Formats: sequence, C-alpha cells, structure tokens
Amino acid sequence: MAHFVTGAAGFIGSTLVDHLLTTGVEVVGYDNFSAGRREFLADALMNPLFSLVEGDLLDRAGLEAAMRRRYIDSVFHLAANADIRKGTADPSRDIEQNTIGTFNVLEAMRTTGIRRIAFASSSAVYGDAALIPTPENVAMPIQISLYGASKAAGESLISAYCECFDFRSWIFRFVSVLGERYTHGHVFDFVKQLRQDEAKLVVLGDGRQRKSYMHVHDCVNAIMLAMEKTGNKTNIFNLGLNDYVEVRQSVAWITDRMGVTPRLQFTGGSRGWVGDSAFVWLDPAQIFALGWRPKVTIEQAVCRTVDWLQANAWALARD
Amino acid sequence: MAHFVTGAAGFIGSTLVDHLLTTGVEVVGYDNFSAGRREFLADALMNPLFSLVEGDLLDRAGLEAAMRRRYIDSVFHLAANADIRKGTADPSRDIEQNTIGTFNVLEAMRTTGIRRIAFASSSAVYGDAALIPTPENVAMPIQISLYGASKAAGESLISAYCECFDFRSWIFRFVSVLGERYTHGHVFDFVKQLRQDEAKLVVLGDGRQRKSYMHVHDCVNAIMLAMEKTGNKTNIFNLGLNDYVEVRQSVAWITDRMGVTPRLQFTGGSRGWVGDSAFVWLDPAQIFALGWRPKVTIEQAVCRTVDWLQANAWALARD
Repeated sequence: MAHFVTGAAGFIGSTLVDHLLTTGVEVVGYDNFSAGRREFLADALMNPLFSLVEGDLLDRAGLEAAMRRRYIDSVFHLAANADIRKGTADPSRDIEQNTIGTFNVLEAMRTTGIRRIAFASSSAVYGDAALIPTPENVAMPIQISLYGASKAAGESLISAYCECFDFRSWIFRFVSVLGERYTHGHVFDFVKQLRQDEAKLVVLGDGRQRKSYMHVHDCVNAIMLAMEKTGNKTNIFNLGLNDYVEVRQSVAWITDRMGVTPRLQFTGGSRGWVGDSAFVWLDPAQIFALGWRPKVTIEQAVCRTVDWLQANAWALARD
Repeated sequence: MAHFVTGAAGFIGSTLVDHLLTTGVEVVGYDNFSAGRREFLADALMNPLFSLVEGDLLDRAGLEAAMRRRYIDSVFHLAANADIRKGTADPSRDIEQNTIGTFNVLEAMRTTGIRRIAFASSSAVYGDAALIPTPENVAMPIQISLYGASKAAGESLISAYCECFDFRSWIFRFVSVLGERYTHGHVFDFVKQLRQDEAKLVVLGDGRQRKSYMHVHDCVNAIMLAMEKTGNKTNIFNLGLNDYVEVRQSVAWITDRMGVTPRLQFTGGSRGWVGDSAFVWLDPAQIFALGWRPKVTIEQAVCRTVDWLQANAWALARD
C-alpha cells in the first residue's frame, strides 16, 4: 500500500512525506517544482519507500500514470498556487492550479480506482467571515480572493465526487502554516527584507491585521488524526490554533529574534492586499473534539520559522 | 448601450433576449447551439437591435471579440450545461461549460472593460439543504452533484472578481424553470414518453420528491427587478415561488392536461438520480422584499409547459 502526495516537494507536502515514511508506508510524490524544492526531499529521496514523479497537475495523463505506479490508498492533494497576493496579476494561476488541477486529480483517481482524498483547503474560503472564530458550518460566504474562490471550487468538486463516485474526502481549511521549510508569507518577507536592510521594514496594511497560525508539525498531526478517526463521505475540519496574533506583535517577535530594531513603514489600509482578510481566526472545536492538541504556540512557530530561515538563507533567494 | 447574453438561444436566454429587446436596448447574443435552438431566436433575428455570435464559452478569444462588437453594459451569463443528470457520465461537461466557461466570461469582461454580470446559478448549490425553505445565507453546504459544484464554483469566481476587479454581480439561484421553450426536465420527459405511449409513464425515484418551480416570465422579471434595485458588489437572490409540489402531483396535472391515464412505473428510491435533491424549496424573502411577485402558479406553469410542448412537438425531438 502506498500514499500519493501532490505538491510533495513543497513546505507542507515534504513535511507530510517525511512523516508518512516514518510509518513505513510507500509514498509516491508528485510535484512540478514551480514552488517545491528538491532540497526538502533530500531525506525522502534516500528512502527506498519513496518515489518521485516530476509532473504538473494540468497533465492529467501524467497524473494517471503516476497514480498507477503503486497500489495507492489515499491521495494527499497539497499542490496549489499558494501565493494569494499574485492572483490578481494573473487570474489563470489560481483557476488552473487550484481548480482545474483538483479536477484533474479527482478524474485521475476515478479512472485509476483510488477513492480517498485529503485536500489542503484554506481559511480563505470563508472570505471576510461572518462569524469569528469561524466554525466550519458558518453561513455561505462571499469570496473575496481568486485564491479563496479557487479553493472553494476545489472543495465543491471533491464533495460532489464523494456523492457521485463514492469517494471519501477529508477537507482541511488551514490557517497560515509556519515552521521549517516555510517558503512564502509574512515571516518570509520580513526576514528577507531585514537581512537586506536591518534598519527598515515595510509592512503591508496598517499592521493591525489579526491572523491565526499553526506549526507545520501540528498541521500534519491533525491531518493524520482526522483521517484515522472520521469516515463520513466528506469530512471538513478547520485546522489552526485557537488563538491569533496582530501583525505588529509578530513583527516584534521577528525583530527581537533577529536582534534588529528597524523603523517600521506601514503601507496603510486595513488589508495587506486586495483579497486579504483583515481578521482570520478559525474555531478548531471539531479537530479538538477528536483529541488533537497543538504542541507549538504561535510565538514559538514564528521564532522557529525565523531560526530556520536564518539557518537556510538559500531558501530566501526565491520568492 | 447593449447587453450581452450567453446562452442566448436557450430556453431562458432567448426569453430574456426577447424581453431586453422590448426595452429598446441592443443585444448581442452568444450561443454554441449545443442546447440552444435557432427557432427560439426567430423574432430576435428579425430585430435590427439584435446580433448573434455563434461561439463556445471555451473559446475565450471568440468571447472577447464578441464583447467588443458593441459597448456592452451588462453580461447576462446563462450559458451552461444544464442537464444535471448527465454529470456523472462525463464530469468534464460541468467543469468545462459551467466553471471554466464562467471563468472565460469573467476574463473576457475584464479585458474588455465590462463590469456588470448577472449569473444563472441554481438551487443545486445548496446540495441537500440543511434548512428548508432555504435562505441565501444558509450554512455552507456540501455539494452532491457535479452540476451544483460547478455552479458553486462559478459563483465563487464571480464574487472574487467583484472584490478584486471592481465588478458588480447579481447571482440568481433558480429553482427549476418552466414555460414556453422549455427543453429539458421532468415535464419534457413525461410529455415525450406519453406521446410515444400514453398507457405507461416511467417516473424516476418514488415520485415523492418535492420540488419548487417558476415560470420563465416570472424568472426574467425577477432578474430585471433585482438588477434595477440593488447595487452591492455581489447581490445574491433565490428565485422561485414560495411553494413546491410533489412529483406525483405534477404527474397528475400533466396527464390530466394531456387527457391520458397511464400506468405509473416508479424506478424507486428517494432521489431521481445520483446527485438529485429530494426536496427543493427556496426561501424567496429577499426577492419578495424588492417587490417581486410571481404571476404564474406552479400548476399553471406546468400546464402552460405541457401546452407548449404539445403545440411544438419538434422541440421534443432532441433531448
């Protein structure tokens, strides 16, 4: 038995691959290396249980061929265009990578007889959430970003496949994930800026945005627990800490950790960018009810991310 | 000033075209004639205010070129794969025609500077609704059909374009629409069967499915009223009568109207097909609050549809 991981060379994907390999199962990784990094698979590639297929989600035949390499139990579909801010510059990125890509994964699964899928969705599907902390069954939201829309579309397709083709799905709405191998987001941007000029830090918005975060190991543990403990057709979980932090607080942690005292320059406005949510805090009651408890606080997750970026400056070279 | 109608040769599209032309505006119609019928545009094609472009939603360049033919105020995006039942036979139909097609419409609008869109969505986006009658802000549903998923994805994309690119949208979640030029659905199927053999009628499911309906003229009037009276970024309305009918009742109206007494044969099960909702009744409070009142009851709509199909048997030739 093997598992199939799309986005296997990404931040969360490679961490999941490493975890799955520790359990002794075979893993087939699929990645187009648009954002993924071969360095993250250094350990996996030395493990005989792991095989890697370099391919794109838009190549459905390639996906199918990769899924036929082993007897696949579950697909962990993590590959996506994960940069929310770039959606408006090229709207086709989100629809192609996140919506059509998800459709292709589902079709490849259907034609190869695989029926279990875990999907990395996002708090972005809640738009400007009507209720905070936001439960999974909040009122139907209005989408405010192409990224959120493309993830919501992916969720819709997955649940329809569960009903129409007897799939089982686990849909995880992540808050922002931090930790080792982190490759984009505000901590990445801030550390990168401060390494170039420790005297100044440009912060998008007014710095009052409030966001929830979680560490990547807590994220992977939650995914595994939910798939072990639940078995409805479609199982939807918020994944995040029952906590949030203001950007200004995060800036303080990062600058303290780096030992710098930059002048802060705010670009202004309540949102970091068009389609940004100014307040993200998901209600994690459902995953807590399964017994999951995070081990890393938001402050610890921010600091560990800073430490890793400082120790792996090569990762900052690409944005 | 002109309006642009996708699916202009369809049941609802051609009725909308005729209505718009009575108001004295120019109309550009776009249709690939996969389901649309040239006969429905017979009047429009004689009107100098109307022009028709034969093209597919998947041809984005063709869409753009068609939108550049006039100064377009609003796009009425009605083109879709509307046959819910066929989704499982070929999943790509719904995703291509309804999701990618909607994305192409949005992109063509963005590049040509058009910013107002009315979208024919569906009660199917509610899946098996958690609350009946179902209000627009019901809890986030789980999709049960590829059609519903593809329409939900279209809605998500549209609202994201409103936020990111300053569009205005009117999203209409229709119940099943009946009336003159009706080309698919249970009344179509039943009349077609009974004209071939008036002694027997096969009814999908147990006949206890409860569905809401509305007449196409009431539908078009509601669309025009909502666009006139509301102007939020994204405006979402249920469109349907505050009433529903059991399939068995509808069968009685149809057979009475046709003067036949067939033996009924039920295929069994609570749903008509995989992905069917056994009970659809939308809360129309929001469109009622704007002053809309339907003029045709469900019984009248069913009977008028039977009469039209009987008088236009050519329309039954294609499914």
